[in-house]
Amino acid sequence: MQIGKAGAPVSHISQAYPDRVEVRGRDLTGDVMGRLSFTAYFHLLLTGHEPTEEQEYFLDVLLVAIAEHGMMPTNVAARMTLAADPGSLQGAVAAGILGCGPVILGTAEECARLLERDDPAAAVKQLRAGGQKVPGFGHPVHKPLDPRAERILDLADARGVSGTYVGRARDVRAAVEETWGRPLTMNVSMPIAAVMLDLGFPASAVKAVPILARTGGLLAHLAEEQQHPVGFLMAAHAEEAIEYERDD
Amino acid sequence: MQIGKAGAPVSHISQAYPDRVEVRGRDLTGDVMGRLSFTAYFHLLLTGHEPTEEQEYFLDVLLVAIAEHGMMPTNVAARMTLAADPGSLQGAVAAGILGCGPVILGTAEECARLLERDDPAAAVKQLRAGGQKVPGFGHPVHKPLDPRAERILDLADARGVSGTYVGRARDVRAAVEETWGRPLTMNVSMPIAAVMLDLGFPASAVKAVPILARTGGLLAHLAEEQQHPVGFLMAAHAEEAIEYERDD
Amino acid sequence: MQIGKAGAPVSHISQAYPDRVEVRGRDLTGDVMGRLSFTAYFHLLLTGHEPTEEQEYFLDVLLVAIAEHGMMPTNVAARMTLAADPGSLQGAVAAGILGCGPVILGTAEECARLLERDDPAAAVKQLRAGGQKVPGFGHPVHKPLDPRAERILDLADARGVSGTYVGRARDVRAAVEETWGRPLTMNVSMPIAAVMLDLGFPASAVKAVPILARTGGLLAHLAEEQQHPVGFLMAAHAEEAIEYERDD
Amino acid sequence: MQIGKAGAPVSHISQAYPDRVEVRGRDLTGDVMGRLSFTAYFHLLLTGHEPTEEQEYFLDVLLVAIAEHGMMPTNVAARMTLAADPGSLQGAVAAGILGCGPVILGTAEECARLLERDDPAAAVKQLRAGGQKVPGFGHPVHKPLDPRAERILDLADARGVSGTYVGRARDVRAAVEETWGRPLTMNVSMPIAAVMLDLGFPASAVKAVPILARTGGLLAHLAEEQQHPVGFLMAAHAEEAIEYERDD
Repeated sequence: MQIGKAGAPVSHISQAYPDRVEVRGRDLTGDVMGRLSFTAYFHLLLTGHEPTEEQEYFLDVLLVAIAEHGMMPTNVAARMTLAADPGSLQGAVAAGILGCGPVILGTAEECARLLERDDPAAAVKQLRAGGQKVPGFGHPVHKPLDPRAERILDLADARGVSGTYVGRARDVRAAVEETWGRPLTMNVSMPIAAVMLDLGFPASAVKAVPILARTGGLLAHLAEEQQHPVGFLMAAHAEEAIEYERDD
Repeated sequence: MQIGKAGAPVSHISQAYPDRVEVRGRDLTGDVMGRLSFTAYFHLLLTGHEPTEEQEYFLDVLLVAIAEHGMMPTNVAARMTLAADPGSLQGAVAAGILGCGPVILGTAEECARLLERDDPAAAVKQLRAGGQKVPGFGHPVHKPLDPRAERILDLADARGVSGTYVGRARDVRAAVEETWGRPLTMNVSMPIAAVMLDLGFPASAVKAVPILARTGGLLAHLAEEQQHPVGFLMAAHAEEAIEYERDD
Repeated sequence: MQIGKAGAPVSHISQAYPDRVEVRGRDLTGDVMGRLSFTAYFHLLLTGHEPTEEQEYFLDVLLVAIAEHGMMPTNVAARMTLAADPGSLQGAVAAGILGCGPVILGTAEECARLLERDDPAAAVKQLRAGGQKVPGFGHPVHKPLDPRAERILDLADARGVSGTYVGRARDVRAAVEETWGRPLTMNVSMPIAAVMLDLGFPASAVKAVPILARTGGLLAHLAEEQQHPVGFLMAAHAEEAIEYERDD
Repeated sequence: MQIGKAGAPVSHISQAYPDRVEVRGRDLTGDVMGRLSFTAYFHLLLTGHEPTEEQEYFLDVLLVAIAEHGMMPTNVAARMTLAADPGSLQGAVAAGILGCGPVILGTAEECARLLERDDPAAAVKQLRAGGQKVPGFGHPVHKPLDPRAERILDLADARGVSGTYVGRARDVRAAVEETWGRPLTMNVSMPIAAVMLDLGFPASAVKAVPILARTGGLLAHLAEEQQHPVGFLMAAHAEEAIEYERDD
């Protein structure tokens, strides 16, 4: 059965032939391998274009900023999963990625959509009036500033990349402080979104960056788990923290 | 409950503090962001050490070699999953990663374990005598050579990285040809393993590289799926290829 | 770090002790095993209460109705995943479950939320006016009726279970026909939601039923895949249906 | 590309037609819904045959025995995942299922393969001599007996279902005690395997039962998590249990 309307049966990414692999119109082995970094290649795969020097520099900055942040819930879940199924590294990575939802990691795309609105600062007041959260603000550890967010903004200013969207991110920060009556921590998601938009990425691509980055962090935790397991120890502490109570 | 014996409750990867993030003993924002590429940072996360220039160069080569290879089953499964659950990019990535098993992508680690044996060429004959497969040989598309495998070996020779393990990989290729009575395609998994071992990676880290690389390819396919969906069209073709038959 | 506000550290489901397991206040081995069917036990686990006879009967009806429906995209994705990673039955099941999103399987909960509104028939007209879809209508194969939907309604009427929500489901069907100017297929999700609400389930539990049911169907497909593999054959047909085109 | 040799393009499970759904040669709506319980239907889907009364009874017993066992690592991982991505019930279920590996839940199939050997008791001594574990023995909580295991054996004896394989399970228990010089807890996996084999299930089907059962338990924990969240609280306790240490 065909669910929904079928679109054009076409893909523009790559094709393997007996003697070569073509990727985005390029010969993978003759033209790409050894010439492009993985970061530049990821840009090519995702957008169809090789990055400019600034695009590659900031894609590296953003991937590095978000890849790893301590024993996050996604790392905990992945390490427990590997402890339970030690033969499947891919299963444990998948379990960790499944936690890359809006609460922990998925707000960069929402930030991008906010920054693309005509007047994001006005939107902040509407969100507040409607009892909703503003994406990209608040952090359980980093107070009063998220050092990653500040560093991204500093680098973007220093290299002349800050444009419309970094400007809007700062307007949103000011609007949040005014609306809430006190400053809230602007977390790393907002500058990720702002810099990506200023560099020409579409909003829909913004979420791909945190997911690739966190996969790198997950693989590091899982390599450590294979050598020095703590997954079941963490599971025991988690379990002990919760009391079983009979229903009334 | 504690399952198994608890080890030391320690991790060496990273820790977030209110005003900074420490990763592998370094200050993430002040020392790492803007200095290390994502590839170099992945090396640091995974191994605890910053890569040498050659390690970073070849880590890029290997990640680029394996990230994307056309409409592979993992990409098909991920695109169908996104079509069915369009709001969860992370779910579709996870579905794709779950196919990174031994048949498609997981032989690099087995290749590494073969290359670490005292006499891999002798092991080939034992495997054949026992009716078992030799990891790293055979490919459904690339014949007689896998162009990615040859390119990796050429680059390793040209840059003086080829050592014990690249030498063993070539011995294994010769032993396979002698044992089978004809050459088999040495696929990309074997040179990935050989070069990683010659660069000092442990065998257990070898599988992390294909998983990170394929996540990049999956994200590209899923970005395309969001713009130009073919997931359900592929599902319809897959379904039509199979006939339902009543049990006797 | 504590993300969000911590609630009470309590669970009401179960606890293992050295010599017994307590589940929802009952002794698992002495009181439950051999007395409750899996369907009744699932009800107990999910809601804290053992089902009435009618609740168990209809929970069986609904689970059976939705467990299996041919070579659905979720089954295709799961079978490809098992072909790629034959050692991980759990990984292939997980890949299939990840496709249980709103397009294929997740509309039962949305149907329940529609039926809980004060005047669902009026809501239909608002949805249409806003260019939105009404959950629970339309099906790629079943036309003009979904036989599973009709069978559930017939059984609910025959056993006297049809109440407020089954009535509302029929009002919604009439409102859809009036608003669209022609009848649309009411698919299986709407009666699942209506009967569950009439039986006293909360709307939030409505999605659990299709997920458990489909897990049963996935396990059947994966057992067949282990004996008679078609995963890679389907992947080949899927791939061949898509043409690679160079970017302009 | 076709990976591996293509088999017959056939499935025997089900097919949807515009006005009906056929499952294993039966009309789903006219013949199955309302007649078969979900347990009986799962048996039909998995094996192609409707169960006998004893097969259905024990399939219920086994599914109930294994569905839920307190705040297991799989439940912890699933609840953390839902906390991080509250919109995706299917993602959290998938994360939990990924932990159904050999350490926690996957030994039933290994037990079945042991029981199918000509002389399982002799195999126990070989395993011990080779420094390997015997599947189905040892439990972190249940000592000296696993009450679920004993209950399954009692029910199988009482209903006359115990045959060759339950007998072998007891021989294996005696051989383990003799070989180790002390009794080890026979856990629930061994009687699950023994009873399923005595009831005529193939060894390859044995793992499907724990996966379906645990999906039921996971859905209960996730329904509770939606109402009374503890996922991030458990993640905080897990994180606090682990000390970050700088590499030397």
